[in-house]
Amino acid sequence: MTRAGCAFPASAADRAQLAMALEVLASPKPGNVDRCHDYEETRLEHFIVSTLAARPALEDAEARRGGLGRVIEAAVGATSCHAGGNTHFGAFLLLVPLVWGGNVAGALSAVRETTVDDAVALYRAFSLTRVRLTPTDDLDVNDPTAIEALRERGMNLLDVMAHSAPRDMVAREWTNGFELCRRAAGSLLAEPEPRTAVRRVFLSLLAAEPDTFIVKKHGPATADETRRRAAAVLRGEEALVAFDEWCIGRRINPGSLADVMIGGIFLALGEGWAWDS
Amino acid sequence: MTRAGCAFPASAADRAQLAMALEVLASPKPGNVDRCHDYEETRLEHFIVSTLAARPALEDAEARRGGLGRVIEAAVGATSCHAGGNTHFGAFLLLVPLVWGGNVAGALSAVRETTVDDAVALYRAFSLTRVRLTPTDDLDVNDPTAIEALRERGMNLLDVMAHSAPRDMVAREWTNGFELCRRAAGSLLAEPEPRTAVRRVFLSLLAAEPDTFIVKKHGPATADETRRRAAAVLRGEEALVAFDEWCIGRRINPGSLADVMIGGIFLALGEGWAWDS
Repeated sequence: MTRAGCAFPASAADRAQLAMALEVLASPKPGNVDRCHDYEETRLEHFIVSTLAARPALEDAEARRGGLGRVIEAAVGATSCHAGGNTHFGAFLLLVPLVWGGNVAGALSAVRETTVDDAVALYRAFSLTRVRLTPTDDLDVNDPTAIEALRERGMNLLDVMAHSAPRDMVAREWTNGFELCRRAAGSLLAEPEPRTAVRRVFLSLLAAEPDTFIVKKHGPATADETRRRAAAVLRGEEALVAFDEWCIGRRINPGSLADVMIGGIFLALGEGWAWDS
Repeated sequence: MTRAGCAFPASAADRAQLAMALEVLASPKPGNVDRCHDYEETRLEHFIVSTLAARPALEDAEARRGGLGRVIEAAVGATSCHAGGNTHFGAFLLLVPLVWGGNVAGALSAVRETTVDDAVALYRAFSLTRVRLTPTDDLDVNDPTAIEALRERGMNLLDVMAHSAPRDMVAREWTNGFELCRRAAGSLLAEPEPRTAVRRVFLSLLAAEPDTFIVKKHGPATADETRRRAAAVLRGEEALVAFDEWCIGRRINPGSLADVMIGGIFLALGEGWAWDS
């Protein structure tokens, strides 16, 4: 029985849900779904419903139940209930190990201990959604024989992420100590104004790193142009609204950096970030 | 351990959280916080965080743990963690019995079985928040002797709600079979376009019923003018945006009808309303 009184966020699962909510509610966020912008097929409601639906999987992650890959698969499955397509696949790739481990050190232990079964579960998770991936080689997630290849080579989930890391900044976080998530967390903690912190830190990430989701969807030139325009906004040389419209008109949505931002908010909350002060 | 696959909303607690989210995300919603409008002290984030924080209390309600009044107290306590003031007090007065009972018939049984301790817990819940109430008599929630009076008279929580019913449309739902919640649910199920259904049904409630929260805050004349303007919008004689601006400029927020709307969405979801189709 719960007791009366203030107790949120109390757990790592709470912090993960809060991070997902604060990320999507930050506005304006160039190119991505936010309070002021939906895409026709993916709306703000879908991101919030995905946040709610992820709860059991996040609780499993916190209790370390069922294997890390299976928990990611469960999270993706639960949030595929809405009609909005992929909302949080990449975010779960970051949040599940972070919630599992409680912090970055714990997450790194957890990913090192993953198994081939975890890798296979991730491949099943892809089949639950329509995540865009560029087929690169014989470990293409859309190739039914890839699971056999994983088993033959004895690749665990960390090996799979390391394999994807050169082309995927979310996978890269598993291999570089969650570097960008930590950077985002540090920037959030340093922001003087919590109410606009997520928006500002997101823009600074966007100005510093080409989003690999944009690379996959539009190619490296567009990803770099997006990064340069974000930097121009930061320098005050371009209006944020104009940049947002430029992104939306071209369907340029920096989805991987949004995932990183969620990981960063999660870490900052764990270090006592006062989002509501 | 959760299994992969679509399972949301699976429980009454899920439907309650989904109802809270869909209500606040509907836009434009005259006078209330929505995607396009915050009040300075109460923002969209606070409503979503309150939705997340209510989870343990809603689970207690579904498991019928701890007494109905204690669960309302726990929900109010959990969601007072944010700095946004009262977000869902009235909504919990409706959702907790509805989740507890599973449907209207079950909720009515549950409220009939409440005790004096449930009533006392509600009075404690008021002390956790800054809910506006007009002191009316010797059962004023701000009067420390009121709890003694409750005990002396042997009033259960249904008696307290019946006492408030003439002045409070949320309390009235306990005494009239959740009439407005049921009407809202029926209207939602009849709407042809789910994406705009909450907004449209809310406007029709607003055009039909003076909001008792507005009565308490601004008096009956303002509540009736708000109702008549909403009716003019429905007839196409006033623009929705102009009505919204009129409300916001006067800080007229129809908070009790928003609570009723949440109860209505909850009931509609229980009857299979396809919010995402």
